Amino acid sequence: MPSDVTVFGLGGMGGALAAALLKKGYRTTIWNRTAAKAAPLVEKGAELVTSLKAGFEASNFLVFCVLENNIVHEMLNENLSSLSGKIILNTTNGTSQQARDLSSFVSGHGGQYIHGAIMAVPAQIGTEDAFLLYSGPPELFASIQERVTALGGAKYVGLDPGLASLHDSALLSGLLGLFSGFIHSSALISSQPGETATGFMDSYIKFTTSMSDYLRALAEQIDTGHFTALGSTLGIYGSALKNICEVTESQGVSSELLKPLEALVEKAVEAGYGNSEISALTKLLRR
Amino acid sequence: MPSDVTVFGLGGMGGALAAALLKKGYRTTIWNRTAAKAAPLVEKGAELVTSLKAGFEASNFLVFCVLENNIVHEMLNENLSSLSGKIILNTTNGTSQQARDLSSFVSGHGGQYIHGAIMAVPAQIGTEDAFLLYSGPPELFASIQERVTALGGAKYVGLDPGLASLHDSALLSGLLGLFSGFIHSSALISSQPGETATGFMDSYIKFTTSMSDYLRALAEQIDTGHFTALGSTLGIYGSALKNICEVTESQGVSSELLKPLEALVEKAVEAGYGNSEISALTKLLRR
Repeated sequence: MPSDVTVFGLGGMGGALAAALLKKGYRTTIWNRTAAKAAPLVEKGAELVTSLKAGFEASNFLVFCVLENNIVHEMLNENLSSLSGKIILNTTNGTSQQARDLSSFVSGHGGQYIHGAIMAVPAQIGTEDAFLLYSGPPELFASIQERVTALGGAKYVGLDPGLASLHDSALLSGLLGLFSGFIHSSALISSQPGETATGFMDSYIKFTTSMSDYLRALAEQIDTGHFTALGSTLGIYGSALKNICEVTESQGVSSELLKPLEALVEKAVEAGYGNSEISALTKLLRR
Repeated sequence: MPSDVTVFGLGGMGGALAAALLKKGYRTTIWNRTAAKAAPLVEKGAELVTSLKAGFEASNFLVFCVLENNIVHEMLNENLSSLSGKIILNTTNGTSQQARDLSSFVSGHGGQYIHGAIMAVPAQIGTEDAFLLYSGPPELFASIQERVTALGGAKYVGLDPGLASLHDSALLSGLLGLFSGFIHSSALISSQPGETATGFMDSYIKFTTSMSDYLRALAEQIDTGHFTALGSTLGIYGSALKNICEVTESQGVSSELLKPLEALVEKAVEAGYGNSEISALTKLLRR
């Protein structure tokens, strides 16, 4: 009996995808370069194959989750004759252009390509916290929608196969900024005797999540190009950044993660945006 | 009849503090270097004074919210004879050392000093979204607690008057990291024809706020010094950062805000943290 899906790549994320599919009752074939990681999934009912070819032949729906898109390209290239009629869902992190190139390649060999961008950490896969973005032919997305909801919320972002990766890059850059601030602030607070990062997290989470409405208002400003100060002015953010960097260094912690923001704010103030909202910084990032 | 409180400084934040106190029925005197901003508060029942001296004499509870702590110091210095018996609540953003110095100065002249750090934008003051951190003598905090809850949630962080500013710096650096990521991601997504920052905000808010549990787990790692990968490894974050910067630049947007994180991750991978969690970066920030 053929499988419903083959998952290629069993790193932290690929393993989580396979587990979520198995949990929803899909017959799942799995493949990994080294088979060592497969054992817990085989216990849950996955069928392990050791050749790529067997993985391609096991299902019509092939999900890829590997480290880089050039690995996906190689894997497809080794199995050209098995591509016809297959649906390729590639969730590998990469650039928009890589997704577009892979889509053309797959179509050129009779397959259908859709790109998926996973907005979650592995532990969230299969839960309400996870969501995935998809781009490619809309009727193709419709045909796989039920299956992919096993992985988390599914959001279709458009026909251009590069769009999911573009959204991925944009969302991930937002998250990495959040992490950057978190790393700075945790290093700073825990530098003080008697203070801990964990003791500080209630305030941290409350403070950062309370800014959602403010961020939505900033997004509107970015789209309209009007940067009237709503929260603080760039001048005030500049003063705050100076204080923060001073406190940070005096606590024996490097302020390097905040330095480019400080420099950009300074540049914006010099360019006449001192009384504008922080959203005005987007103008300075565009070339 | 004396006022319950005098608010010095009517910028966006000082004005919001005065308005919140008035709303709760406190007799509120206000002072600002230029009186122009006072009109809407006078309409709500505030008593405007034009001399600093009159402001000091109007109440026993004096709240300061100005641009820099050296301005607070000057204002106090001009009114030394009025400091005895007064409670000074200073909410001005600054360094921990500045708060400690001001506390000693006020105590030396017979007053009592408590520092307040405002974790909110002006529009949030007086709502559940706002909270303020206080540090200074605990019995002094107890004596003002009822009044200050008019401004937002009140959290006492310790006897050392510098602690509220330290928490402020740490929380604000976290927020500025979030903003940094937001500015990058909004500039990136809106660089694509057909995409907007506002259209993207649902995903953005969902994705970043879904990370709260992950951040709490990272905080635990930072306190214990064990950095086992939970989400992704630093090696994977490094690859993702490379992709994001490439996509960003190819869209005509500068990736300068993410560059220091990319450099720090690279340094961490070289130092042997390639398979560790991103929390390990705190070790590299400490000197």
